[in-house]
Amino acid sequence: MATAAPASTASVAQELVTLCRAGRNMDAVEQLYSPKIVSVEPMGDENMPAEMTGLEAVKGKNKWWFDNNEVHSREVNGPFVGEGQFAVQYTYDTTFKPTGQRVTMTEMALYTVKDGKVVREQFYYNVPAERP
Amino acid sequence: MATAAPASTASVAQELVTLCRAGRNMDAVEQLYSPKIVSVEPMGDENMPAEMTGLEAVKGKNKWWFDNNEVHSREVNGPFVGEGQFAVQYTYDTTFKPTGQRVTMTEMALYTVKDGKVVREQFYYNVPAERP
Repeated sequence: MATAAPASTASVAQELVTLCRAGRNMDAVEQLYSPKIVSVEPMGDENMPAEMTGLEAVKGKNKWWFDNNEVHSREVNGPFVGEGQFAVQYTYDTTFKPTGQRVTMTEMALYTVKDGKVVREQFYYNVPAERP
Repeated sequence: MATAAPASTASVAQELVTLCRAGRNMDAVEQLYSPKIVSVEPMGDENMPAEMTGLEAVKGKNKWWFDNNEVHSREVNGPFVGEGQFAVQYTYDTTFKPTGQRVTMTEMALYTVKDGKVVREQFYYNVPAERP
């Protein structure tokens, strides 16, 4: 074959955490995500639905988040690797710029890899979404 | 050494998912958890604090949960294995017996292993805790 084999789940996982540790989340999306990426949050609203599909939508969500949050510190724990999926634990200490409210949030993300690309990301929270 | 080496994170992870797939969660706690287990939920109340310590408390929480929920189906996805930690995704379709309310919930658990025993479990939810 002229083309290289798709990257393994473990190597995609390692690349993703390396980029996210460096704050390069947008590069992770651009380099590692499938054009058909599906992104699932616990909750959505009319502007930001819980489930989004496609690279442009996910890049838009990421851009919105980084434009609106000042990140004081981040911790990226993992990856935790399974068969065709991997998980990462994130802890972010941020200030939401529009309100000035500072929060520390911990979440787990579960990623699904197909043909060397992330095709699904689903987020799980330890802090209730409603809590200030 | 006369005693066996502690079980690896990967083997503890595999044993835990095997028992939980069989609905033997209490056996998993008894066989795989440290006496000093720390269990962390997103939220607590005066009866069931968010953070519990010790095998008896965690067994009590599990017993309470299984006594009060009828499990229609369960899915145990994983394990996702890292260095000294592993994650598991659970989906439960349950009816809460006191109210008759049926819900499907998805969660991730992150387990920390030390000396071959689970010393910490922390739960992350995709469904907002307040949603009916």
